[in-house]
Amino acid sequence: MKYNIAILGATGVVGRKTLQILAELKLENNNFYLFATKKSAGKKLKIGKTKYIVQELTKENLCKNKFDFALLCVGENVSKLYAKYLTKRGSIVIDFSSAFRANYPLIVPEINFNDIGESKLICNPNCSTAQCVLALNLINQKFGISNVVYSSYQAVSGAGKKAIDDLHTTQQSKLKKFDYPISNNLICYIGSFDKYGYCTEENKMIFETKKILHSPKMQVIANCVRVPIKNCHLVSTTFTTCKNSKLTEIQNLLKQTVGVIYDNSLLPMPLNANNKNDVIVGRLKAHKNIKNCYSMFVCADNLRKGASLNAVQILKKLIEVKK
Amino acid sequence: MKYNIAILGATGVVGRKTLQILAELKLENNNFYLFATKKSAGKKLKIGKTKYIVQELTKENLCKNKFDFALLCVGENVSKLYAKYLTKRGSIVIDFSSAFRANYPLIVPEINFNDIGESKLICNPNCSTAQCVLALNLINQKFGISNVVYSSYQAVSGAGKKAIDDLHTTQQSKLKKFDYPISNNLICYIGSFDKYGYCTEENKMIFETKKILHSPKMQVIANCVRVPIKNCHLVSTTFTTCKNSKLTEIQNLLKQTVGVIYDNSLLPMPLNANNKNDVIVGRLKAHKNIKNCYSMFVCADNLRKGASLNAVQILKKLIEVKK
Repeated sequence: MKYNIAILGATGVVGRKTLQILAELKLENNNFYLFATKKSAGKKLKIGKTKYIVQELTKENLCKNKFDFALLCVGENVSKLYAKYLTKRGSIVIDFSSAFRANYPLIVPEINFNDIGESKLICNPNCSTAQCVLALNLINQKFGISNVVYSSYQAVSGAGKKAIDDLHTTQQSKLKKFDYPISNNLICYIGSFDKYGYCTEENKMIFETKKILHSPKMQVIANCVRVPIKNCHLVSTTFTTCKNSKLTEIQNLLKQTVGVIYDNSLLPMPLNANNKNDVIVGRLKAHKNIKNCYSMFVCADNLRKGASLNAVQILKKLIEVKK
Repeated sequence: MKYNIAILGATGVVGRKTLQILAELKLENNNFYLFATKKSAGKKLKIGKTKYIVQELTKENLCKNKFDFALLCVGENVSKLYAKYLTKRGSIVIDFSSAFRANYPLIVPEINFNDIGESKLICNPNCSTAQCVLALNLINQKFGISNVVYSSYQAVSGAGKKAIDDLHTTQQSKLKKFDYPISNNLICYIGSFDKYGYCTEENKMIFETKKILHSPKMQVIANCVRVPIKNCHLVSTTFTTCKNSKLTEIQNLLKQTVGVIYDNSLLPMPLNANNKNDVIVGRLKAHKNIKNCYSMFVCADNLRKGASLNAVQILKKLIEVKK
């Protein structure tokens, strides 16, 4: 059976990665409908071997077809315009933006696929959160995690093409995306600030970790930084287990985690994670004289597990369930 | 009165910065003797307006003069060769390396200058530690700090000229200093590993924080990463106070700390800290629902407060005490 699948925001950095992963996960034999801004309409993009012509994203164009699924590779504002419009017309929507994460299922398929229930609107999590919760999930299930401190080292690619261009200038006046030069600099926030001094990305990591892991009482601290690399996020992750745990037990859980590579020979660095589907975990340390407390580094391709891969995994699992 | 001052390792990145800061702190009117490797002997370097010819670093050359002070801008192995040789000949040695930090006074002059006592051998702390302890000191004095979690974002300059050159290649075969490309990558360790999985830099941050702050029971966690920027270290610093504290009290202590700029208008980023003597602290957050727990970012020029500035400040204070 072939499904009708709409891809909104198909020409952006995340959209193009999504098209690539649809083919990689053998979903290319469906009927795809690609949408983007007026400027990109008419462009031709491939999914596997099939070429598609990009249409302008308008309600008029969307209503010409009925979609079984829609992947919204777009920002919050565009999602708010189209997500519910599509679910009302019978589509199951997988939304990449943060617009609906508070009130709709927020899914990392290896962890909480069943949270979807009957919902027609499914949220794809924040990039840095997805990779970390995958690494923490089995540890949390077995021992409980009382607190976690994240410090993130985040690449520019998730912020789009303009952000990637900004890697190549140190001149404030030539910046297209960032408020400050990112080349030869570290920007110590991502998004905007709330009244407590948290930035948007930090609030996402805190809220989404608790929600995805079903652990509302977990104490989550997040400190987010944009670093001058093109792709892959690294997160320094320090956590404490509720029950007594041993280093070897934590190591074994990481080795068992589907979607995670924990192997002493592979360091969690962008160089090793780039264009890989797996989340690389490493440098696990049990802290001397601090009970049940560990640190590790978690590195992943933010466009894959942090965005397109996770969404396409959700789609694939939904299709398998329908069969 | 003029002092005889030897500078060992004068031609390196840290050595040259030290010469610059000696003039900035108005110490240029002393008699300097510059030493470096054979390869650099004969080079001419300025302190203020005076040119000095670099001599080869050998015991034969060192023993031609008596030095009141010696600044050892060199690595551990070279320090071990010359530090005690110089103290035995009557010099007060300020050593930049980690060779003697465990057993000799380890000094950040704003914090613990009096720890020097009668010692002829004085240690300059690790770069990332110096900036953090300065930010934490008054808070620790007033409320006590029970635990701190550091995640560091460290520039390449402290690792020398070859490390700076490595910023410009992504090819493994062309690297001069690092084990892996640093351009477009994050190297998730600094130094070598001990049997517990800690890297050298992490052990330095842990040991030195407790020693400088006179707080052997403080629980210190450090996760260290080299990032692709030329100069300035950023440290994500999460800490918990022993006594009850309020955000406004922590803010006031940071504002009072000599050598620290805490000002909401200045973000702690390399762009703002580069070539500045002050440590920039910012993005202080009190964590909701986690008692007495705060995060902040601490950014400083690692060649200044993290190395040359701190050492020259020690020297200047020693000279003032002698007067």
